[in-house]
Amino acid sequence: MKSKFPKLAADLASVSRGFYQRGWVLGTSGNFSAVLSREPLRLAITSSSVDKGELAADHILQIDESGDVLEGGGRPSAETLLHLAVVRLRGAGAVLHTHSVWSNILSDAYAADGGFSIEGYEMLKGLEGVSTHEHREWLPIIENSQDMSRLARSVEDALRRRPDAHGFLLRRHGLYTWGKDLAEAKRHVEILEFLLEVLGRKHCALK
Amino acid sequence: MKSKFPKLAADLASVSRGFYQRGWVLGTSGNFSAVLSREPLRLAITSSSVDKGELAADHILQIDESGDVLEGGGRPSAETLLHLAVVRLRGAGAVLHTHSVWSNILSDAYAADGGFSIEGYEMLKGLEGVSTHEHREWLPIIENSQDMSRLARSVEDALRRRPDAHGFLLRRHGLYTWGKDLAEAKRHVEILEFLLEVLGRKHCALK
Amino acid sequence: MKSKFPKLAADLASVSRGFYQRGWVLGTSGNFSAVLSREPLRLAITSSSVDKGELAADHILQIDESGDVLEGGGRPSAETLLHLAVVRLRGAGAVLHTHSVWSNILSDAYAADGGFSIEGYEMLKGLEGVSTHEHREWLPIIENSQDMSRLARSVEDALRRRPDAHGFLLRRHGLYTWGKDLAEAKRHVEILEFLLEVLGRKHCALK
Amino acid sequence: MKSKFPKLAADLASVSRGFYQRGWVLGTSGNFSAVLSREPLRLAITSSSVDKGELAADHILQIDESGDVLEGGGRPSAETLLHLAVVRLRGAGAVLHTHSVWSNILSDAYAADGGFSIEGYEMLKGLEGVSTHEHREWLPIIENSQDMSRLARSVEDALRRRPDAHGFLLRRHGLYTWGKDLAEAKRHVEILEFLLEVLGRKHCALK
Repeated sequence: MKSKFPKLAADLASVSRGFYQRGWVLGTSGNFSAVLSREPLRLAITSSSVDKGELAADHILQIDESGDVLEGGGRPSAETLLHLAVVRLRGAGAVLHTHSVWSNILSDAYAADGGFSIEGYEMLKGLEGVSTHEHREWLPIIENSQDMSRLARSVEDALRRRPDAHGFLLRRHGLYTWGKDLAEAKRHVEILEFLLEVLGRKHCALK
Repeated sequence: MKSKFPKLAADLASVSRGFYQRGWVLGTSGNFSAVLSREPLRLAITSSSVDKGELAADHILQIDESGDVLEGGGRPSAETLLHLAVVRLRGAGAVLHTHSVWSNILSDAYAADGGFSIEGYEMLKGLEGVSTHEHREWLPIIENSQDMSRLARSVEDALRRRPDAHGFLLRRHGLYTWGKDLAEAKRHVEILEFLLEVLGRKHCALK
Repeated sequence: MKSKFPKLAADLASVSRGFYQRGWVLGTSGNFSAVLSREPLRLAITSSSVDKGELAADHILQIDESGDVLEGGGRPSAETLLHLAVVRLRGAGAVLHTHSVWSNILSDAYAADGGFSIEGYEMLKGLEGVSTHEHREWLPIIENSQDMSRLARSVEDALRRRPDAHGFLLRRHGLYTWGKDLAEAKRHVEILEFLLEVLGRKHCALK
Repeated sequence: MKSKFPKLAADLASVSRGFYQRGWVLGTSGNFSAVLSREPLRLAITSSSVDKGELAADHILQIDESGDVLEGGGRPSAETLLHLAVVRLRGAGAVLHTHSVWSNILSDAYAADGGFSIEGYEMLKGLEGVSTHEHREWLPIIENSQDMSRLARSVEDALRRRPDAHGFLLRRHGLYTWGKDLAEAKRHVEILEFLLEVLGRKHCALK
């Protein structure tokens, strides 16, 4: 287990700096995790309030299944409970959370519907298990909250109600997505952020 | 022939990383090829499902005229048949396929018309054989499909109906363009993506 | 005191180049300062009319509480009085001023209201002292002027009227924000610029 | 004179690569020049059809007052006559020409008016000789043409009619601006491109 930590921490830091360049994790927003082991559950996770453009491997903590820090300095992200919920319910190997302009706009615009569907785009095929652009992806929107236990329960409910969802939005907050490993989770971020931008801009561009 | 492969593979990888920075090939989308020889036909082509921001020369395969891999590991892109169709019908030396936000929006908005024209822009002069901004470029839109043989036939039909076209759009999918060599194909991507952005934004900006 | 100057100057230059990449300080616009000491008051501040993409540590001056240069070549920014006003009234350790597209558009659109509020976004939590997205941030808009003494008084008035504000806009000019240190001020720039972009785009995207 | 050429060529190449990153000179578009000497008139100018993201010092030619090449390989830009016209009528030390999305959109939208004014923005103060945001800058729009002698005359007419203009737009083509040296010309590009983006987006953002 220990041997996986330095490599995963470096990979998380690299993903972080790339997302920062795209403006998806400005102002210390966003947090990222990857599973180090399942039995017992151990996560590598970004520490709280770090500049994501300068994230380095030593800003990554190792935590246990309760979110307690086993290795590394600093506090784990306030949203650690959400990461743990996704890992448990989806068997994810990595969980990535971004704050983009378009996720903020669309999560607010469709909040009353509890989510929205994305359908007919080739880019959807990059989501794990999707083999055609005719796929209909439902992206749940969860009302934001500062009560992390309550928010974690809302996330768990949404994940159970939508077993096929590849991600979800927190309203006026951002995107959560995941994958069996960090590369897949990164791919899912790029795909969903791309599709959010397409949906956001198309209303403007042509009517 | 062998001597051309390492250089072309490195050049394809360099183009790929540049397009990734612009957000044109997110989420492992997009694929790129260049002709190594014509008799027999040999292509250097990106392998499937690679992160285009980390594409390296060893992610490039050598394939024959049937799309079978002669050198390199991994599967060739699922859209290899489209690359081969463009090479054969246009005599192209390189074929580049990008997934941009604006190509997704415009290929959908004008799908019922089967394409749209771009006219009057100086940037059009960068397209091979175009010597004035008064040029009228028709950009065909082809309905997307997961049946690659059928999609390849649709592409061939479009290329034959529009012998002057410098590229085409797959609906809600992306842009294909090509050139006599990689530099010309890259230039065509930049020109067409630029013009798509102009057309997409102008509806919004001023009315 | 002298020992802090080289490090702060290098940090200011690094922040400057990052903001330039994002297009927030084009055309030599923008200016940045950080407090070297409070008794007596000493500021490190960018010299006037420097390309912010090429800002180096030796473009940073040391000034006293009147804005007179103690160390370094060049003139201090014409807006030095505004920096000094923020430092005095807010106890700020760093003051950053950017010129973004969205701050120009929104500071003009809401000028008649004297400002606008931003409410309900998770990103607000990155502002110092804010612990919930339910926070309502009022961003004052101050009419622009070339009379720096008058503009400094307008800024002081706005800061006194809105003791909780984390920044303000100069109309058709740009954003001022600050923090207890440079890292916090940089975070505040990113957060407020992000939120300005969200507000600016949402009018367009969905209606 | 010779001693200035290598340095100016390197500086032009550096400016070029920066503008390419911003998407202002895609697809080999754009061209840049700087004066090497006035008596006799000698210009360093980009050669035609070079990828501006890979522009190197050896893609820069030295030409005389007729546009004939004195040093370097390749053809000078087709728009060399326009550069020479600006140098002669404005006494410019550098002339920069970009093709941005917003210059294409706005030069078309306001073509019937022959130009448009930009007024009230602090960013205007970065234009040489402008000391207040209350400045009113008229940006002439010139109908595009492939007849370079005719286009050069149109440019000369516009420059004479508007002796205070800091730049002009060619319709559906791009921006020309200049400065006493390359640094000033680069600053003018950034300022005018910024202001074009503000004007273009504000119609969309808020109405």
